[in-house]
Amino acid sequence: MNDLVMDHHRQAAFEVGAAAARRLFDALSERTADPPGITRIAYGEGERIAFDLAAEAARDWGAAIDHDPAGNQFITLPGQDRERTILVGSHMDSVRHGGNFDGAAGIVLGLAAQAVLAAEGSKPPFDLQVVCLRAEESCWFPHSYIGSKTALGRLDPAVLDDVRRSDSGRTLAEHMREEGFDPDSVRAGRCLIDRSRIVAFLEPHIEQGPVLVAENVPIGLVNGIRGSFRWRQARCLGQYAHSGATPSDLRRDAVVATASLILAVQELWAEMESAGHDLAVTFGQIGTDPAQHSFSKVAGEVDFCLDVRSQNKDSLDHVRTRIDALAADIAARHDVRFDFGPISGSDPAIMSGPVLNLMQRVAGRIGLATRPMASGAGHDAATFADAGIPSGMVFIRNENGSHNPEERMDMSDFDRALVLMLGLMDEPAEAWAEVAAAGRR
Amino acid sequence: MNDLVMDHHRQAAFEVGAAAARRLFDALSERTADPPGITRIAYGEGERIAFDLAAEAARDWGAAIDHDPAGNQFITLPGQDRERTILVGSHMDSVRHGGNFDGAAGIVLGLAAQAVLAAEGSKPPFDLQVVCLRAEESCWFPHSYIGSKTALGRLDPAVLDDVRRSDSGRTLAEHMREEGFDPDSVRAGRCLIDRSRIVAFLEPHIEQGPVLVAENVPIGLVNGIRGSFRWRQARCLGQYAHSGATPSDLRRDAVVATASLILAVQELWAEMESAGHDLAVTFGQIGTDPAQHSFSKVAGEVDFCLDVRSQNKDSLDHVRTRIDALAADIAARHDVRFDFGPISGSDPAIMSGPVLNLMQRVAGRIGLATRPMASGAGHDAATFADAGIPSGMVFIRNENGSHNPEERMDMSDFDRALVLMLGLMDEPAEAWAEVAAAGRR
Repeated sequence: MNDLVMDHHRQAAFEVGAAAARRLFDALSERTADPPGITRIAYGEGERIAFDLAAEAARDWGAAIDHDPAGNQFITLPGQDRERTILVGSHMDSVRHGGNFDGAAGIVLGLAAQAVLAAEGSKPPFDLQVVCLRAEESCWFPHSYIGSKTALGRLDPAVLDDVRRSDSGRTLAEHMREEGFDPDSVRAGRCLIDRSRIVAFLEPHIEQGPVLVAENVPIGLVNGIRGSFRWRQARCLGQYAHSGATPSDLRRDAVVATASLILAVQELWAEMESAGHDLAVTFGQIGTDPAQHSFSKVAGEVDFCLDVRSQNKDSLDHVRTRIDALAADIAARHDVRFDFGPISGSDPAIMSGPVLNLMQRVAGRIGLATRPMASGAGHDAATFADAGIPSGMVFIRNENGSHNPEERMDMSDFDRALVLMLGLMDEPAEAWAEVAAAGRR
Repeated sequence: MNDLVMDHHRQAAFEVGAAAARRLFDALSERTADPPGITRIAYGEGERIAFDLAAEAARDWGAAIDHDPAGNQFITLPGQDRERTILVGSHMDSVRHGGNFDGAAGIVLGLAAQAVLAAEGSKPPFDLQVVCLRAEESCWFPHSYIGSKTALGRLDPAVLDDVRRSDSGRTLAEHMREEGFDPDSVRAGRCLIDRSRIVAFLEPHIEQGPVLVAENVPIGLVNGIRGSFRWRQARCLGQYAHSGATPSDLRRDAVVATASLILAVQELWAEMESAGHDLAVTFGQIGTDPAQHSFSKVAGEVDFCLDVRSQNKDSLDHVRTRIDALAADIAARHDVRFDFGPISGSDPAIMSGPVLNLMQRVAGRIGLATRPMASGAGHDAATFADAGIPSGMVFIRNENGSHNPEERMDMSDFDRALVLMLGLMDEPAEAWAEVAAAGRR
């Protein structure tokens, strides 16, 4: 990492950690291959293999390995103060035919930092614990953040029996037990994390959007995780009619009305963004009814999904009110009805200001270009933040998004993130005082 | 029909025809029932039953019944001049779970007119031949106007072997033979119609749009059948991206681009209509790709159909050029690509001016409210017009469109159309001179 400031005596140890990371990425890619890409089903074979590979790698530096009742894995490198802990980690599961880096990169980064520190014989100010979380990808169990919630003893017990894996149809509790873990203890809220000992939770992750590539900045420092509301079963109801025989003024065209809503909401987005709101609005699915539509019929129904995200709860509330008004106006003009159906979503999560400050200070010291940014996607860090643990996320530049085999993180950017992580571990306990104080509040 | 002018002596005969029509509609509805609605598959059981019911009804007045090699059925009431013929008819097949009137109403109307004339012992100026056509609904054999083309000896012989019925997978020739007819003669262009003897073709049909209901006019006199062009496999190609993590200026959103095209084409329609163009534009099918879309992804692809119709070929050409330009502009602005795919369609057909004039004169004489209008849907009359036979269509007011069990023609409107048809048959040969002359040109 010629462009970053690093002590000369660290160079050799750094190479040990960088090589360990590359070996682990290669092993993960090979052992969980499912062309195109990789598949690591939550509480399934791929996730199990990935957990084992992480534990195996850590044996090289003699780290202690523990599992909580839900099967989350903790890999501990002792620090100067053994009473307190910095957690670094992410999830190991992937979508089907996903990429090798989403989730895993955060764990590999934590392990690489341990490898470097162990190789050079230096100790971080507190224990450095790498946490491998379970079941983050909601394509498997349709519930958010199962790994981080169980790691913190905060999973709603009903989820264990109510939520079923999409491929097997069996419950979370069944799969947990099958993997050798203990759903009854999870139900009782037992976990390994003692919140009073945790200084901070840090989650490195590839960026899932195109911002860092577009702006040519290797690292993003996340200031918040966007919350959302979603209408996943919205409908526009008009009336089917003959395409050739129905004049425009007698149509109740669900396609035209929905197109009008889409463009009106695009304009609303632009307007609110100009006014300083953080916002992302997406109509990701849209379709007429294959059982009824025809190229020669005015469409009587369009189904669609609307996903709205913001770092700010007030912005979410505001946009929702405005969309209701836009839909009412369009419905009246086109003589159709909008039925948005059930709403779901999540609250925005704010990353710790002191953690962000510390990361920015270290980045400045080592000469690393970063930019503050919101995370548009949800991450386990939101659960840690919600539990009152000072949390931060490091985004690593990545091409082609995530959840697909084409995701592409340049290893030189991974190395830059590793230098940042080592810089954080080099900070003395006093430098973490403000972070720790935030956690105790 | 108290609101129309009818000779007192005709009243009793009229009741005979009206009753015959009602019996035939009831028998058709009962014998081809397939709840909801009726099904009369082309060259299948329902169509066969309907042909037989029509022939059976006509035995009451001793009409001669003939079939051409394709199985089209001709029911003849002799006229004063036996060397020339007026054809009245339509098709007998229906879509699956269709309504009782689409197609059949035109045949029943012709038969009811024969019944009245026979009952009162009067002769039309020329033979009045009711023609029951085969296979008009393109949901069965995906080729336009098979019945009228075979009736005129104008079917492209390749269609017999190339076109397969959607439910059976077997060819038109196979089905024709199975019903007892002669595809080899069809192939050779043999038919019963001698064009030099035909004075005119008249096709009564329920209106498939809402105009007559909306304007409270019972009868429409068709001045032209709209032609069309269709893009049935059009696509907009952008790029899939994370909905939460991709800012608006880095998106290549196929949904937003397609919505922009839809609204731009709506504006084009309004603009061209104001400028006097006849036009109907419909995006009847639209959909993101179920294999790839997600509520949390910006959509990288939208598939859609576009159906454009006009009475005027120049208008069709003009709108096509304009849509190409709109799509190019939108593609550039949204960094997407439009691929419209193969184009299909049909030329507009002009109904005979002298036939329209004669129908308007008769309507005036009997005090029947009518309006001239375009047919947005295709009809067999387009084939007759294309063959140089003076052709006209009578639309009967109908609620809820067609191709569904809810189509609703009031029998009082059917009776009004019957009075109009009888009024045409009352016109002496001299009144048809201008029509006949048009046919000879």
